[in-house]
Amino acid sequence: MTQVAFLGLGAIGWPMARRVADAGFELTVWNRTAARTRDFAAATKARAATSPADAVRGAEVVVTCLSTSKHVASLLDGADGLLAGLARGALFVDCTSGDPATSARIAERLAAQGVAYIDAPVSGGTSGAEQGTLTVMVGGDRAALDRARPVLASFGKKIVHCGGVGAGDAVKAMNNAMLAIHVWSTGECLAALSRMGVDPRVALDVVNASSGRSNTSENLFPQRVLTRAFPRTFRLALLDKDLGIAAAVAREQNVPSPILQLTAELFRMAHAELGEEADHVEAVRVIERLAGQEIA
Amino acid sequence: MTQVAFLGLGAIGWPMARRVADAGFELTVWNRTAARTRDFAAATKARAATSPADAVRGAEVVVTCLSTSKHVASLLDGADGLLAGLARGALFVDCTSGDPATSARIAERLAAQGVAYIDAPVSGGTSGAEQGTLTVMVGGDRAALDRARPVLASFGKKIVHCGGVGAGDAVKAMNNAMLAIHVWSTGECLAALSRMGVDPRVALDVVNASSGRSNTSENLFPQRVLTRAFPRTFRLALLDKDLGIAAAVAREQNVPSPILQLTAELFRMAHAELGEEADHVEAVRVIERLAGQEIA
Amino acid sequence: MTQVAFLGLGAIGWPMARRVADAGFELTVWNRTAARTRDFAAATKARAATSPADAVRGAEVVVTCLSTSKHVASLLDGADGLLAGLARGALFVDCTSGDPATSARIAERLAAQGVAYIDAPVSGGTSGAEQGTLTVMVGGDRAALDRARPVLASFGKKIVHCGGVGAGDAVKAMNNAMLAIHVWSTGECLAALSRMGVDPRVALDVVNASSGRSNTSENLFPQRVLTRAFPRTFRLALLDKDLGIAAAVAREQNVPSPILQLTAELFRMAHAELGEEADHVEAVRVIERLAGQEIA
Amino acid sequence: MTQVAFLGLGAIGWPMARRVADAGFELTVWNRTAARTRDFAAATKARAATSPADAVRGAEVVVTCLSTSKHVASLLDGADGLLAGLARGALFVDCTSGDPATSARIAERLAAQGVAYIDAPVSGGTSGAEQGTLTVMVGGDRAALDRARPVLASFGKKIVHCGGVGAGDAVKAMNNAMLAIHVWSTGECLAALSRMGVDPRVALDVVNASSGRSNTSENLFPQRVLTRAFPRTFRLALLDKDLGIAAAVAREQNVPSPILQLTAELFRMAHAELGEEADHVEAVRVIERLAGQEIA
Repeated sequence: MTQVAFLGLGAIGWPMARRVADAGFELTVWNRTAARTRDFAAATKARAATSPADAVRGAEVVVTCLSTSKHVASLLDGADGLLAGLARGALFVDCTSGDPATSARIAERLAAQGVAYIDAPVSGGTSGAEQGTLTVMVGGDRAALDRARPVLASFGKKIVHCGGVGAGDAVKAMNNAMLAIHVWSTGECLAALSRMGVDPRVALDVVNASSGRSNTSENLFPQRVLTRAFPRTFRLALLDKDLGIAAAVAREQNVPSPILQLTAELFRMAHAELGEEADHVEAVRVIERLAGQEIA
Repeated sequence: MTQVAFLGLGAIGWPMARRVADAGFELTVWNRTAARTRDFAAATKARAATSPADAVRGAEVVVTCLSTSKHVASLLDGADGLLAGLARGALFVDCTSGDPATSARIAERLAAQGVAYIDAPVSGGTSGAEQGTLTVMVGGDRAALDRARPVLASFGKKIVHCGGVGAGDAVKAMNNAMLAIHVWSTGECLAALSRMGVDPRVALDVVNASSGRSNTSENLFPQRVLTRAFPRTFRLALLDKDLGIAAAVAREQNVPSPILQLTAELFRMAHAELGEEADHVEAVRVIERLAGQEIA
Repeated sequence: MTQVAFLGLGAIGWPMARRVADAGFELTVWNRTAARTRDFAAATKARAATSPADAVRGAEVVVTCLSTSKHVASLLDGADGLLAGLARGALFVDCTSGDPATSARIAERLAAQGVAYIDAPVSGGTSGAEQGTLTVMVGGDRAALDRARPVLASFGKKIVHCGGVGAGDAVKAMNNAMLAIHVWSTGECLAALSRMGVDPRVALDVVNASSGRSNTSENLFPQRVLTRAFPRTFRLALLDKDLGIAAAVAREQNVPSPILQLTAELFRMAHAELGEEADHVEAVRVIERLAGQEIA
Repeated sequence: MTQVAFLGLGAIGWPMARRVADAGFELTVWNRTAARTRDFAAATKARAATSPADAVRGAEVVVTCLSTSKHVASLLDGADGLLAGLARGALFVDCTSGDPATSARIAERLAAQGVAYIDAPVSGGTSGAEQGTLTVMVGGDRAALDRARPVLASFGKKIVHCGGVGAGDAVKAMNNAMLAIHVWSTGECLAALSRMGVDPRVALDVVNASSGRSNTSENLFPQRVLTRAFPRTFRLALLDKDLGIAAAVAREQNVPSPILQLTAELFRMAHAELGEEADHVEAVRVIERLAGQEIA
């Protein structure tokens, strides 16, 4: 059976790794916080590694799922680093929601060691990870993707080849940028209507039967804003990071993108105001505070 | 049977009036271009009026469906104007996609003559009008809405009371503003991905299975942009007008709305560039031209 | 000697009226707060009026200096209103930093009573008012301006005919809009440099010798921001209002103005955050807070 | 006498190098286009180098003045590259309007060879270069700056130490960003006033006596826009590049900067529309075209 190393047992990494284990792969795991590595190993048959180098030694497929590409890059070097442990011919699958430029640099360094790289960020949240229904956006060689498929299939349902290295990162970032644009602009529109005395339920009812509808108006606002529930499912800090990636891609490609760039600034402001733990939908609270009007 | 006057036989007014006629109301019609008035009368049992005053004389319910509130206001005065013909107790139903401030002024002048007013803009396009499945967004007295319901029901399926006078206009404008924001920002994101070598079909496939999806990504881009069809169903000029209304509502309500205000500027620019006849989705062509990249 | 009525004895109105009195005009004053009217009359030879109507009775020239055009408009009607007291042939000089649309409506109502109107907002602050060195931006008939000149000359040094009614308002609003754009954008640039470790004094020294310089970089930042003095000389709330006027003029004229419109939103946000008493330069505090970096 | 190598004999590099030669330094020059190198050598006593490596061999001070940092970086490697010719202990003075991130990478590579680096972009244009009155913004070690001073003094009058490596680039970029913001926003405001019938001369006369004034309103618009002269002194393409650098610095420093980011998009759009040869002030033509109104 294929030997797999999985690095990064965070909120979404854990259930993804769990599904890899349950699919019968011979799994070694590593997490920055050692306790979490041990807990995972205790709960499965996986081996707990003591370092990135230790984790990937002998692995045919290495999966990383960290916060940023820079975190992945920081694991490469040193005596305990990935490059010290990786064998020629291994396949590196980076499920981090990364940035194309850093991914390209990582891929280049790995290629020099005979290791193939694909970026493979996922969407679908923790519940999608638990149920194995994630969408996986892949950038890199199609042949490398084909080799990764059995592992990806353990947690992903829709596996899409987007293009060369970084294309998976870019598509993920752009999807999330659209989400951010929808959240903020729907907040603006509903705050104005609310102040005018229009019940936001009524407004959403109309919008959701009309041309202005989006996943945000159909699901996020009714379930999270109008109810004041604001569950913490996806951190604003991470969406801010994704917007930064999307904005950089548009600039790199020399595409005029005023709405995208402005929204990146707005979420930077919201992040500074609401802190690290706030959920992405709580960005609406900034509009509400400044408008003096709750959307409820 | 209730006597109804219908003023404004444009692209959407015509099929709406047609359904009013078919529902058996005793109908009088008027259009600025007399030939169109005569054509309509010839095609139905409606009476062709020679002036706004003539059209509304004796009418219990008056329906207007013009380009802007200012057009409606301009029909009020003079010997041939609406105020000269309207009887006390009549009900004025304005289906124009109007602006709340002008609607309020019209309502005030009508009230002084004992005529009730509701703003009742519609969405659903010409096909919705033909099939009687429009959504009608109503602002004004609930009692007035109840009186209007039989007429509205002839062309509308979902009839929603949004609030006081102007609330229907505001909800319509905000829905369309969201549409505009989605069209432009989806264009930005897909142009950047396309330049990077990502097939926009693949990108949309991912987005439409993810959190960034909207009516725009699910329907408008696949059917109209990727195909290069850009059918002319709803004029950019009118969406520009609607954005102006939405932007003014947000300012009037003192709600910070940077994305909405910026998008209003972008569509003003697109309107200046593409002219009066362009479809609203063609705004994407401005991004494509500046990016040097078709989304296809 | 010409009889003059002066309405609005605020921070700038008071010293303007004082100079009118000192120039020897026969002056009657009125202020919403009666105590201030009495204090002014006690300090000069001016007559204290008990109402707007009382103030303007017999006046050949009426000067208003209120917060907004809406305040001026609100004084027109009623038994105690301006229209009740104004004589045919009088000249109405509105020194309010007003908006062209409301000024036009006021001018129209006054014209119907045979009263000429010019908008004549001023710049130069309280010290300019005290020293009689204000700049006066005039909109309206040149003949009316000529009639007003003797009174304007008592507090103004540079008296500029800008165009028809509303042109003075528009020029004033645009000047202030440029000021606001300079304040905010200089704040952005210096906050970024400061975080990078560049001393903002050094940066301003360079900018003020280069193409990026402005009154804001030459005077406001060195004297008010770097010193942390932030003296309260011109309220942010008023600059927010002026931006609203400038933004509305650009929209009314159908001129794409993304920077102006965005800046209007930013000052709206700063106004909501910093309240009614903050100085206009304190808008920079919002940037500093969000950047986690003082410009000092 | 100190041996100096000067690479990059463009519009501004040529007169700078000329002043270095005239100051008596032993000069070697190199330019990508060999003819220009030969012409310069023929006009002075400078030696014409055949490659970057040849140019810097034996030089104590190397000055580069290229279009972008990437151009400088591209000269480092290879048999004919700078690194092949540079001696330990040399001083590298980069007068390119560069970006801090690339400058830092270049500095790091040079440091590994025992070569000190300062970024030293200039402002003042070709006439400032000819007259030796440029402003030089320096980033890097103060000791290195002191060593460079004699050479810098041959073309610069105001030599400012801004901070560590990249600080000179950042200050230059931010100054130019302010310039760009002023040009565009003044264009918006004057286009709106012009459409309203206000003579832009009158408006500028007022603004230049008031709080909204800037170098742009005092010099650029009166001399270049109102006259329709639009002389080509500084390419829009380069200002677009500088805005990109400034916008990246603000993002890197995590400073919310909506006006800066939006202006970067507007100049990207203007650059795409007006091409490589347009002057930076011609950005105003985009506003004029969309507004249907010349500012004249």
